[in-house]
Amino acid sequence: MGTKGEGNRQRIVNAADNLFYRRGYNQTSFQDISDATGIPRGNFYYYFKTKDEILAAVVDSRIAELKVMLSQCEAESDDARERLLLFSNMLDVNRDDVIKSGCPIGTLSSELAKNDPVLHEKSRSAFILLRDWLKQQFDVFHVASSEDLAMDLLAKLQGVTVMGCAFKDEDYIKRSHQQIKDWINSKTLN
Amino acid sequence: MGTKGEGNRQRIVNAADNLFYRRGYNQTSFQDISDATGIPRGNFYYYFKTKDEILAAVVDSRIAELKVMLSQCEAESDDARERLLLFSNMLDVNRDDVIKSGCPIGTLSSELAKNDPVLHEKSRSAFILLRDWLKQQFDVFHVASSEDLAMDLLAKLQGVTVMGCAFKDEDYIKRSHQQIKDWINSKTLN
Repeated sequence: MGTKGEGNRQRIVNAADNLFYRRGYNQTSFQDISDATGIPRGNFYYYFKTKDEILAAVVDSRIAELKVMLSQCEAESDDARERLLLFSNMLDVNRDDVIKSGCPIGTLSSELAKNDPVLHEKSRSAFILLRDWLKQQFDVFHVASSEDLAMDLLAKLQGVTVMGCAFKDEDYIKRSHQQIKDWINSKTLN
Repeated sequence: MGTKGEGNRQRIVNAADNLFYRRGYNQTSFQDISDATGIPRGNFYYYFKTKDEILAAVVDSRIAELKVMLSQCEAESDDARERLLLFSNMLDVNRDDVIKSGCPIGTLSSELAKNDPVLHEKSRSAFILLRDWLKQQFDVFHVASSEDLAMDLLAKLQGVTVMGCAFKDEDYIKRSHQQIKDWINSKTLN
């Protein structure tokens, strides 16, 4: 694929990523993505044969972005506790989006669980990446249950996201973020 | 509306309730509800003019069911701590459904947040019912933050539900349910 082809492919993935997040996967049509990119529907088939293929590319793209975010946490601090706190900041950084549309990973997973086992499993890979990275950080503290703690932290973030979006409550998210930071400290400070 | 009319209306609401939960609101058509009930599409309009009206009736029906569940918790125990523990058992009772389709209230709210502000607000009323009931139970312990605790408990349940469904992990849900019960005890036993 040439540079222009790569550029078009990336534009399709970016537009689909945004639409899947803002409207939902099932509510996004090829036509919507075509409208958002200005690339004619007919040309899509050169890059993606089905919407499933676009979804797979979107999940890969989200995973790539998450890896960048995790690398930033690692670059900003050598300290595992600090890294976990930095990770939790995503609640604050994305507060407006969370209130409007929930968590991109959580809502995609919940949506796909209902009608597509294969795509649902694909979407899980983003959670697995985060769980494994969080486990690595908790491992430093030599706790037996570092994977459980990683899942607990993800569940806390998901829970706050669902409720913050349901109630459109900015203060609730701020307050809950502080609680989550307190919890991280309680698990990592002796 | 006669008895037969009421019966048909209830059949439509029950079938829609199930389909909205299993497939999602947006993925359910009038035709799907017609197929599930055997009631011809044309006859629907006598009961519901739009899918939005069916959604409103489904939310009302879920709220009525939740009220029955809350009344059962109240009937089973006079003790607020016991009632909170009984409430949390919904995670266990519905474990199979949670793994397959997530939480009916949480996933509906997340779905509607993305494309329908009016219906999203309607779906919030189920959360408000639960929050207010939980707040009432926490009030007994004379804590200043009983509403915050109610929101915390709902967020915990939502978080576990999202992660349990994403990972299809029964043991994780059991373990997390125990943690939630421990948390309830920690907030209500002096």
